[in-house]
Amino acid sequence: MAYEIESLNSKKSKKRADLTKAAIKTFAQKGFHRTKISDIAKKAKVADGTVYLYFENKDDLLIKCFEEMLTDLMEKADQRLQAIEDPLEKMLNFIDLHIDYCEKNRDAAKLIIIELRQSPEFYEKYPDFWPIKNYLNYLTKLCKEAIDAGRIREVDPDLLTTIIFGSLDFSITAWLLSKSTIDLKRIRNGVADILHKGLIGDTNNEKND
Amino acid sequence: MAYEIESLNSKKSKKRADLTKAAIKTFAQKGFHRTKISDIAKKAKVADGTVYLYFENKDDLLIKCFEEMLTDLMEKADQRLQAIEDPLEKMLNFIDLHIDYCEKNRDAAKLIIIELRQSPEFYEKYPDFWPIKNYLNYLTKLCKEAIDAGRIREVDPDLLTTIIFGSLDFSITAWLLSKSTIDLKRIRNGVADILHKGLIGDTNNEKND
Repeated sequence: MAYEIESLNSKKSKKRADLTKAAIKTFAQKGFHRTKISDIAKKAKVADGTVYLYFENKDDLLIKCFEEMLTDLMEKADQRLQAIEDPLEKMLNFIDLHIDYCEKNRDAAKLIIIELRQSPEFYEKYPDFWPIKNYLNYLTKLCKEAIDAGRIREVDPDLLTTIIFGSLDFSITAWLLSKSTIDLKRIRNGVADILHKGLIGDTNNEKND
Repeated sequence: MAYEIESLNSKKSKKRADLTKAAIKTFAQKGFHRTKISDIAKKAKVADGTVYLYFENKDDLLIKCFEEMLTDLMEKADQRLQAIEDPLEKMLNFIDLHIDYCEKNRDAAKLIIIELRQSPEFYEKYPDFWPIKNYLNYLTKLCKEAIDAGRIREVDPDLLTTIIFGSLDFSITAWLLSKSTIDLKRIRNGVADILHKGLIGDTNNEKND
């Protein structure tokens, strides 16, 4: 009996994962507003009604997709960063992880770039929906640790998070629209260099290429 | 006769401006995908057919809204910057202008933040649609001038544009969703400070508050 329940639970969680996977693909291809629950059901090869066994409605599905993607990313970060001692290296590795993830999961990247910016109506309906919040807090924590360890000077870690995430976000937007012809790793290195050394310095001799 | 034609032209351009104004408001409130041409016609107090005298379709209207907003912003920048000599000050003034414009034109800001990120399908249909391109080029030119004048060190001006615009864009997104409780001017000053001085430096004595 216990075995049966366990097997049922594992079947359920597999079905649930299949549905969010299908939803991420469909939202990315058609856009959230034009996607119908039936499109997602079709992609996941289930009846429309099955979707409602797992999710309240389309809004709920979008929220759950974000939760899943970003939790997955933070778990990956936990694994990767625990082997690194230097807090500045941890911060830079987190940036690399974000870029790698977007490069390998184009559909997820589209969702993070496009559908995260839901119309303000959506945010009025779900005041707690700013799914990137925990993810930004994760980056802010890494910034704080690098400051506390004296690896970077004392700046506002929230502002630093805004600069890092804003630059990444905008570069990935351009990358998505350029059909991946932009070299995100080159951008990452350039942004890290500008942030690290700043814009003043020996203006005659330094070259950034 | 000449007078009549002139008067007709001026009537037409007023009607056209009224329509883009109504479109910006409607797109901002309902989102592009959920907006119908009839919603815009209603807002502008004209018959649905009138919209088609000026614009091909809803896509065309969105493209024209962007063109109008960003041309307006660049004209404002031309006026404001011509009185300033220092290229670094010009660059900073352009950032201030962008923030001022978004603060005063919330609907336009919503369009720039949310609807600019159309689904990739839209960009496949209109390969030349990346309306922010000229605007970004404007900022890149200011960055180049500041580098050439030796006011900032030699960095890649495209990368610097990405960092500046990305940080602004992400801050304005947060500002829109926070119902304007975020202080964009404070963010602007913090970003300018971090970019200017960089993250290395005297980590023991400097404070950024």
